[in-house]
Amino acid sequence: MLANRNLIEFSLLKSIELDETFKSGAYDTVDLKAQDLENEFSVAVEKGAAQEEEKSLVQKVGPRITKLKFGNIELETPIFMPVGTVGSVKSLSPEDVYSIGYRLILGNTYHLNLRPGMELMREFGGLHEFMRWPGAILTDSGGFQVMSLAKIRKLNEDGATFANHINGAKITLTPENVVHIQEDIDSDIQMVLDECTSYPATHAEAKASMERSMRWAQRARTARKKQNRAQFGIVQGGMYADLRVKSIKELKKNDFEGYAIGGLSVGESKREMRRLLSATIPFMPHEKPRYLMGVGAPDDIIDSVLLGIDMFDCVMPTRNARNGSVFVRSKSAANGKIQIKNAAHKTNKGPLDTECSCYTCKNYSRAYLRHLFVAEELLVFRLLSIHNLQFLYDLTEEMREAIRQGKIFAELPHIRKKYAPGSV
Amino acid sequence: MLANRNLIEFSLLKSIELDETFKSGAYDTVDLKAQDLENEFSVAVEKGAAQEEEKSLVQKVGPRITKLKFGNIELETPIFMPVGTVGSVKSLSPEDVYSIGYRLILGNTYHLNLRPGMELMREFGGLHEFMRWPGAILTDSGGFQVMSLAKIRKLNEDGATFANHINGAKITLTPENVVHIQEDIDSDIQMVLDECTSYPATHAEAKASMERSMRWAQRARTARKKQNRAQFGIVQGGMYADLRVKSIKELKKNDFEGYAIGGLSVGESKREMRRLLSATIPFMPHEKPRYLMGVGAPDDIIDSVLLGIDMFDCVMPTRNARNGSVFVRSKSAANGKIQIKNAAHKTNKGPLDTECSCYTCKNYSRAYLRHLFVAEELLVFRLLSIHNLQFLYDLTEEMREAIRQGKIFAELPHIRKKYAPGSV
Repeated sequence: MLANRNLIEFSLLKSIELDETFKSGAYDTVDLKAQDLENEFSVAVEKGAAQEEEKSLVQKVGPRITKLKFGNIELETPIFMPVGTVGSVKSLSPEDVYSIGYRLILGNTYHLNLRPGMELMREFGGLHEFMRWPGAILTDSGGFQVMSLAKIRKLNEDGATFANHINGAKITLTPENVVHIQEDIDSDIQMVLDECTSYPATHAEAKASMERSMRWAQRARTARKKQNRAQFGIVQGGMYADLRVKSIKELKKNDFEGYAIGGLSVGESKREMRRLLSATIPFMPHEKPRYLMGVGAPDDIIDSVLLGIDMFDCVMPTRNARNGSVFVRSKSAANGKIQIKNAAHKTNKGPLDTECSCYTCKNYSRAYLRHLFVAEELLVFRLLSIHNLQFLYDLTEEMREAIRQGKIFAELPHIRKKYAPGSV
Repeated sequence: MLANRNLIEFSLLKSIELDETFKSGAYDTVDLKAQDLENEFSVAVEKGAAQEEEKSLVQKVGPRITKLKFGNIELETPIFMPVGTVGSVKSLSPEDVYSIGYRLILGNTYHLNLRPGMELMREFGGLHEFMRWPGAILTDSGGFQVMSLAKIRKLNEDGATFANHINGAKITLTPENVVHIQEDIDSDIQMVLDECTSYPATHAEAKASMERSMRWAQRARTARKKQNRAQFGIVQGGMYADLRVKSIKELKKNDFEGYAIGGLSVGESKREMRRLLSATIPFMPHEKPRYLMGVGAPDDIIDSVLLGIDMFDCVMPTRNARNGSVFVRSKSAANGKIQIKNAAHKTNKGPLDTECSCYTCKNYSRAYLRHLFVAEELLVFRLLSIHNLQFLYDLTEEMREAIRQGKIFAELPHIRKKYAPGSV
């Protein structure tokens, strides 16, 4: 198990500046051209509340390799983090997840607080031991549920009160108790409670929401009883670049161990997401981890890594797997995905993905997997989940290697075509 | 994968006569005393249609070790066989099943014929390759479904016609096509189509049903296109000892590679099952494998092994696991089982079974498993299935070892108390 843990150790191993390549068009996607991104970047700077001051905040932008260390666990970013909502990456054992190469997974504070509950967490000394996960754990704050469960919660300055989805009993999350819940979970990276701004929102709504999140972030920072785990602040501000910049300025006052971008992938277009990323990331500290919350589509990962995001999480790979939807490299399907239940796979003796080295692809045919899926055999959910997680692991590993070698822009067309052909 | 297969190789390694220990009471169970069994045995002999002739058929009765060999796969009996209905032991991978120690699993001909269907079986060269199972496979014949799906099938001398449970399309199973389906599956042990007599049945009904099964067995024996796989006959006769003896006499004319007892565990009491076993087994060939179909409760396995049964199968361990019902040794629960969802396990940091060495017990607490079960996390079905199958594997291994060492009767009270405390 994870031993000798202390506060996250962060080091920046390699950083590639995007600026010079911006104009070459290397970053072009169907959604947004390099030129557009550059414009957005300028606009964001100019729209900052105190224009000159904000310009001085601008950091290096571009892909990078960082090292995160938690006790005896080390990993290099950019990484994807599988989601283990209530202490299990759905359908998989800890060994399954670890064997793929993952060393950092995500748990959901809102859900863990309801089940199994914090009494058990304290009894076991935290989630690592309870679920027998030998790697590190990041917990979200419940801020996403403040948005996604809006119908069953009331919000005020103190916090959010939910009629919980299991038995309707009232549960209040405050910036303070969310810190203490995460201390009971003993997660290695703990997120501050925020209000994930709903989409769409007017500038005034997004501003008020962001400002409350910033006050909550401050309260969370001072509520800590244990100082030996990393705490990340979360940038909010809806779809407004100026609010995002102000949010970062506020958060930085608390000197968090890392910074996350919240409130994206909430319904906006991919183009809109990219616009916001290119207007936000330049203002995020260069010497701290940067985490884009709730994002895991291959094209989104590729584009965000280029701008300097280090960490991602999303339920997509495991949820898709349970729906029979499988990521594959473009050699195995022109559009980068297959639906395993399709009759086309009925007699296919080949693997899901001919270029994949995962347990599933090494052992099982599409025909067998389709049969299991049609017959509703539980094994298939595990096998497809292993593959989808391997796919995202391989994507990030290929990007890490290209960044390490300084070849990321040369490799980019190849990587994008291979892992996200739909976006080329 | 399984290589160099040929017809099953069978050898009798050790055989212990029961007779002398009968009177010591060593065989006593709460259901039936040794004295009762001895009486049943005598009665069965005397009730045989041709009394003197049948007496001459009586074989040695008692626990034994046999060796089964299929190509490069060898195993010693008595064994339990996990059930992989449609090409998957439910919730488990082939590695999971193999790692426990299992080398022979069961597939269901009726179900496999519907899904994935025989076209795929022929395409893949059989079920071993399709499901990537490195051990051997026994397939049942569909005879059980003739009984269990009685509402959707019509029966005549030719065979059984089902309105199948998936789409209602007509499917006819005949003694001949069941042979050919199993040849497509390429199972190592193939069962003849029989009519699993329903319970209760009058003597006349059971007799007519058994006699049809015997005609079908003869047809199955002559229908084979491939002679390099074992084919087992199935003893029927309902709850009537004289019919069972006649059934064996008929079957033996075909010189099958093994003999199974069908039509038990269909609703009769445990006492009734033991009465029939003690009246049937003495007449089954000593120099061939003996397989008791559909039986897997620990106390039933223990008692049947004592009488000389070599092979068992049952969906119970995996089905129970999916319902949260777990076998444990008596040190871990006085009655030999626990319901994982019970609140009693909520904070229990111990394993399911303190004396179990399975993957689940080595790694996970009852508290975690209960949490997963309550939260309906898929992982739990795999973890409980692994444990329940390990439990039956360990039970049979402990009996094998005691028989090898000639200590089975000395160990019996201990084994029965440990694995089947409810029956002591």
